[in-house]
This record gives sequence, C-alpha cells and structure tokens, in this order.
Amino acid sequence: MRLIIFTILIILNSQNIFGQIKGHEKNIKMIFNQALTKGKSYKWLDHLSNQIGGRLSGSFNAERAVKWGNQELLDLNLDNVYLENIMVPKWVRGTFEYASIITGPGMSINVPVCALGGSISTPAVGLRAQVIEVKDFEELESIGEKKVKGKFVFYNRAMPADLIDTFEAYKETVDQRSIGAKKAARLGAVGVIVRSINLRLDDYPHTGNMSYGNLSNKMRIPAAAISTNGAELLSSMLSLNKNLYFYLKQDCKNYPDVPSHNVIGEIKGNEFPEEIILVGGHLDSWDLGDGAHDDGAGIVQSMEVLNLFKQINYQPKRTIRVVLYMNEENGLRGGKTYAKNIKQNNENHIFALESDAGGFTPRGFAFEATKEQFKKIISWKPYFDPYMIDRFTLGVIGSDIAPLKDGKIVLSGLRPDSQRYFEYHHAANDTFDAINKRELELGAAAMTSLIYLVDQYGF
Amino acid sequence: MRLIIFTILIILNSQNIFGQIKGHEKNIKMIFNQALTKGKSYKWLDHLSNQIGGRLSGSFNAERAVKWGNQELLDLNLDNVYLENIMVPKWVRGTFEYASIITGPGMSINVPVCALGGSISTPAVGLRAQVIEVKDFEELESIGEKKVKGKFVFYNRAMPADLIDTFEAYKETVDQRSIGAKKAARLGAVGVIVRSINLRLDDYPHTGNMSYGNLSNKMRIPAAAISTNGAELLSSMLSLNKNLYFYLKQDCKNYPDVPSHNVIGEIKGNEFPEEIILVGGHLDSWDLGDGAHDDGAGIVQSMEVLNLFKQINYQPKRTIRVVLYMNEENGLRGGKTYAKNIKQNNENHIFALESDAGGFTPRGFAFEATKEQFKKIISWKPYFDPYMIDRFTLGVIGSDIAPLKDGKIVLSGLRPDSQRYFEYHHAANDTFDAINKRELELGAAAMTSLIYLVDQYGF
Repeated sequence: MRLIIFTILIILNSQNIFGQIKGHEKNIKMIFNQALTKGKSYKWLDHLSNQIGGRLSGSFNAERAVKWGNQELLDLNLDNVYLENIMVPKWVRGTFEYASIITGPGMSINVPVCALGGSISTPAVGLRAQVIEVKDFEELESIGEKKVKGKFVFYNRAMPADLIDTFEAYKETVDQRSIGAKKAARLGAVGVIVRSINLRLDDYPHTGNMSYGNLSNKMRIPAAAISTNGAELLSSMLSLNKNLYFYLKQDCKNYPDVPSHNVIGEIKGNEFPEEIILVGGHLDSWDLGDGAHDDGAGIVQSMEVLNLFKQINYQPKRTIRVVLYMNEENGLRGGKTYAKNIKQNNENHIFALESDAGGFTPRGFAFEATKEQFKKIISWKPYFDPYMIDRFTLGVIGSDIAPLKDGKIVLSGLRPDSQRYFEYHHAANDTFDAINKRELELGAAAMTSLIYLVDQYGF
Repeated sequence: MRLIIFTILIILNSQNIFGQIKGHEKNIKMIFNQALTKGKSYKWLDHLSNQIGGRLSGSFNAERAVKWGNQELLDLNLDNVYLENIMVPKWVRGTFEYASIITGPGMSINVPVCALGGSISTPAVGLRAQVIEVKDFEELESIGEKKVKGKFVFYNRAMPADLIDTFEAYKETVDQRSIGAKKAARLGAVGVIVRSINLRLDDYPHTGNMSYGNLSNKMRIPAAAISTNGAELLSSMLSLNKNLYFYLKQDCKNYPDVPSHNVIGEIKGNEFPEEIILVGGHLDSWDLGDGAHDDGAGIVQSMEVLNLFKQINYQPKRTIRVVLYMNEENGLRGGKTYAKNIKQNNENHIFALESDAGGFTPRGFAFEATKEQFKKIISWKPYFDPYMIDRFTLGVIGSDIAPLKDGKIVLSGLRPDSQRYFEYHHAANDTFDAINKRELELGAAAMTSLIYLVDQYGF
C-alpha cells in the first residue's frame, strides 16, 4: 500500500515537473516568436542610432538619450519609471584632430587619428616630434628615458588574431590605450600614438578611455589612436627612416563634471516584489559613430525584456527592473552610483544581467555565481539549446553591474558572437547599418528567457 | 606479476591515447592559428569575387573561374590537379528586366525585379496583366482557373521569421520560386511574380532556379522575383485596387548545353591512398552579385583545407581531394557527373564535406552517417569546443555531394551561423564586402580540423 502511494506520488510529482518544463518551453518559444516577429528592439535602435546618434557622457546628445529612454519606458506602462541623479565627467573632442607622417622636407602623408577619451589637446600649433615604436611597456622601459625624451611613443602591438574570443585579444592590447600615455610621459615622451584596437586592417581610428592616473597636469601628454592601416604605414615608414617626424594636432578638452542620469523602469513582482532582477546596458556611447553596437544594442535589448513580458502578458513573481546606465565608457559613474544607492536603500537584488558586447548572434551567457548557483543555472541550458544559445560559462559579465557584486547576487553577461565586434568598437563605423535585425532580436529573446527562468525559480 | 604487467600495459596504453589526444589538440590548434594568421582563403575570395565576379554556369566568367581554380591548385603543388568534363545548362539574363505597378491611367511605380533562372522572356513589348495574390498553391487552386486565367500570379508568402535556422524558413517558401510558374501556368496565368526569399525588407530581388517540369514550350510563362519591399508595396496596392495592372518585361533565354568543368586537386595519402576524403563547394554562382557567400566562401575554404595541410607540413594517411563543383545553382551537373564517374572508376570515397551555407561564423557540422559512424564523429566534438564549433547534428549536408550517397560514405556539411545568409542569397548584394575575414577563416579551419580527424581515424 505504502509502495503504491509512494509510486503514485512519484508519478504525480514527475508529471507536475514535466508539465512545468513543458510550460517553460512553451513560454520561451513564445518569447522568441514575439521578439522575432513583433519585437521593438530594432525600431528602438534605429531611433537611438539615427535620430539621436553618438551620446558621450556630458553631451547634449546623452541628455536627449536620457529623455528618450525615459519616455519609451513610460510608454510601456511599467509600474515605476524614474531617473537616478549622477554626476558624470565631461570630455569633448573639439573641432579638429589631424595627423601626418612627415617623410621629408615639404613631404607628408596624412593618417587617420582620433583623440583618446580623456586626453589633453596638443598645443594650438600642433605637436611635431620623432617617433619611438614599441610593442609593449617592457620594450619601452628597455629603450629608456634618454631615447624616449622629446618624442612620440608609438604603441603598435596588434590584437592577436589567433584568439577565438576576440575579447581576449582586446584584453591583450588595451593597456597601450588605457595607460600608455602615463607610462610614456614618465619617460619624457611628448605624446603617444596608439594602434587602434581592431582586428581588421582599415582606416577607422578607434577611440576609448585613457587615464593619466596620478600624473600631475604639467606631466600630461596628448594621446591619440591611429587606424590599423595608419599604424602599418607609420611602422613601415619608420623601418625606412627612424628619424622621421610625426605631426599631431588635436583640440580635445576636459571640463568639470556635469549632472546626468541613469534611467530606470520596473514591473513589480506579484509574489516577491522585494526581490529585484536587474537587466541593463549603457545609454552613453563614444562620439565617433552612433554607438549602435556599443551599447545601443544592449539598451534596446534590455528594454525589450520588459516589453516582451508586457506583450505576452507575463506577470513576474519578482520585480523586473531595467537600468539604462549612464557613463560606462569614461567613468562608470552610473554603475557605481546605482550600486551605492541600492545599498543605502537596502534593496535586495538577486540577479543582474548586462548586455554590452554587441548586437550579434547570441552564443550564451557568462556568469559570476557560486558553485551552487551555477549548478542551478546549468540545469536551464536545455531550454536554450533549440535557439543555439548554449554556451554557459563562468567569466566576465559587464562593467555596469560589476559594482553590485556582494557574494550573493548572481551576475551575468550576454555573450554574443565576438568575431565582428572589434571592427566597430569605439569607431565611426559603429552605426545602425552594422546591426542585423535578427541577431539583435535573438539576443533580446535570450535575455528575456533567462530573466524569465530566474523569475520562476529565484536563487 | 600478471597484475603488474597488466597495470603497466594499461598505463602505457592510456598514456599513448592521452598523447594522441594531446597531439590532435595541438595539431588542431596549429590549423586554427595558421588559418587566422597566414591563411589564403580571404585573399582568394577577394580575387574570385572582385576580379572574376558572378559566374553562372555556361558563362564566360564561369570559365574564367575554372581557369583560376585550376591555376591556384597547381600553385599549391598538389600531387594531382585536373579538370573533369561536364555539360552544363546555359541560361542568360539578357539585356534588361523591368517591372512596374500600373496604378491608374498614365500612373505607375517601378519595382525591383529579376528573372528567375531558367525562366523564358516576356514578349518583346512586355507583359501587362492583372494580378492574383496568393500565399500558397492551396490558395491558388481554390481560386481556380477561371479567375487566374490571363493574369499574373503573385506568390507572396514571406519567410517565417520565427524559425531559428533560416534554412528551415527557406524550405518553407522556396516552392513558390521553384515550381510556382508551373502551377500557375496550368491554371492559365500569363506570368508569375514571386516574393524574394529574403528575411529582410529591402530592395534587392533574389533570383534562383525554377523549373517548368514537363510543361510544353507553349505552356511556359515568364517568372520573376520581386524584392521584399516591392512585394509589400504590390500587396498593399492590391488591397486598395485588386484590378490594378502589373507590367513585366524581361529578356532572358535558354540555350543548348555547353561544355564546362569541375576542378579537382588532391594530396595522395601515404598509408591508404585509395581511401578518398573529399572536400568541396561550388564554383558557379548566380549572376547578380559576385557570389562571395554562395559559394565563393565554400570554394576558398575547401581549397584552404589542402593549403593548410601543406603549410603545416601535414602528410595525410588518406587521399585528400578538393572538388570545385560546377553548376550547383541550376542543374547540379557537376555533382551528378562526379558521382557517376567515381562509380565507374571504382574510386573509394569514405568521407565528403561540403561548404555551401555562407562564409559566416561556423557553428558546427551536419552529417549523413550510420549510428555507428555518427558515434565516432560525436567523440570528436571536444576538439571543436575551444573554437565554439560544437553543434554536430544529423541533417542536411549539401547538394553537390548528395549524389555520392551509397549507405557507406559519410557525408557532411559545414553549418555556419544562418541569421544573415538569406539577406544575400542569390541577390546583387552577395558581394565580397559582406564577408568577414575571421568568420570565413574560422570555417576553413573547422573544415580542415574535421578532415584531419577523418584522415587520422577513417571510418
């Protein structure tokens, strides 16, 4: 008798689980169908890219983006939409940037450059000096102050092409851009020219943030990126004549901080409203392109999560909050301020998901989680297999949500295919036409599905 | 004592296996590194796309492509390079194709169209008729001969956007193009206009093969593709005025078959030279673009397999043969002739791999294999995991190698990411600039690695 009851219980229970699994499969299918046939992400991104455009923190366009994001979230009829006050750095590119390789008396070749974000300008007449080409800081140090003094340092270490995940190749080379000026200034260089962090040979200079660290103002030197083709050309010219001169003129400037905002919207949970599930990207972008991949894609995908829940009439158990972060690119003030404020307000975040790796075909998610939490996440993988989004790994998740880390919250980043990303990253060609509608939508659907499962099961 | 010897044997043996596994990992890493840093595929494709261009069977350009392929294979210093004679259909687009929606007396709107491959021309003055819009053959049949007679049939079934594998969506809609004219002609239609098989709304008409089957010559009617934007416009116009007229003028023509060639090259195996491992793609393309994705990518990836083996000094055990097939697009004469000839010559093919799904990031391979064979293949999956090429499935493999099927040979097709493919497929925008170098190279490396493992283990 006991055995029979036990067996019946098992059958009932497994049917229940089976029913639930089928339900999740069905709901996730609905999410994907909706995203691919009636989603808003692509139209939103069209507007953000083409009607607003590049939106560097502290710029007029960044504030237009805040206004737009706020209004779009209001139009979704969320339970709560508000702005979070932050102060952001203000750096402006100015009205010109220009460089040439001076190959002989009266002879020069123009090369595409752009100022690195945070750099100071050159003198108004520009800067003319000889060039020391190096691959890394070790080589620079070995050359030493005597030979570096009074010259440009030209960092020309290419992204390694044989790494499959191009973000790994980025990590291998980004130090030239971020602290190259500081290192070179300490050896008496007058400026730095940095090879663009781009796997392709082309004519786009790629900007990005740099820092002088604790260098005094008078020690600071101008820093510019040169296109990969320009870097190849300069290197080739230097191999013929190491005494050639380089000329750089740029007009950028740092201003005092200005006020800006994170844009926040949420659907209140009906069972555990105090448990918050966050999804977000960053609303600011660099100023050269229109920031379609970095990170317009992440913004509209994050907004789409809430939109899709509304469209399929899904009432979450937990509170689903979207955060359009300001100032990821050159300060991370949005991410830091948000994390500080929720701590002060004792808000309980159980999960945060960021999309900031481009709007390409999603391949999976990276997580920061305990062993136990990750085990639970891995059990959800089969739901993503029909959509070919099956690479769940522990690893890098995203800058904006990183400050939320407290040992309990699970953090995650969407991992799209990375092969094309660094052709566009921080360059003038990061524009809406480089976005594929379906790839963008698949990413939004993947994110919505993951958030749905977190909402169903919690941590 | 026995136990000790046994244990030692086990240890030696497992070390041996472990050594072999490590060796394979190392060799595959070398293949990927080589492809991504010193590969030839991208430069080859640049030439094939930009210096030769579209190469429809029977055209002058197709023969230029044959000559080029032959020379490039000769330059690789293979053991054997030769041409295989075939006869191919010759269809030419002619000097004009043109269409408009006539909305009223003296009022018309031009729409982008292209003749479908194999279609007859319109009368020299063009064809003017009313339009019946249908979604499928069932709807056409239900409308019936009386209403269809004397009109254009407009097939307007869009690719379903909610299928993740876009080749599935292609399968759902391609019948409109391939046999739509035959079906409509039987009901007395004067011509057919087919919505381009494209997931995106744009202005490119997509051509492709069509067949009149056993329709007599006088029963045949002209068939053209209309761009997706054009289809939306026409449908919208028809909803306002179902009596509007459509005007089509095209100048295409079928000629008698002409001679052409498959281009073949091979590295002889040094252990089992009689066991042939084939890799290939198709050298012909449609005439509108330059066929960079369809199938220039497959051609250069297949050539790259042999080139990489040469570059890393890998001497295969079995014979590795590359076949640049002619006439996949409108006749499959290359694939059929090749299969016939090897049967006559009693050649033993153990494996054939085709790349004909675009030069996008590789996601895995599809196989036609027995259970036992597939089990062996699946055991190789871990080698591909570091490259994120881990989807090994049973399924569609490729048209050119399909005639080789004999129940013993294992057939395989490279499966790249499919999201963007049908934006370019058979259209004027299938050009070299739509190719990403790394994505192309990763596909070539994946193919080389699979062929390497087949060569190591056989079937």
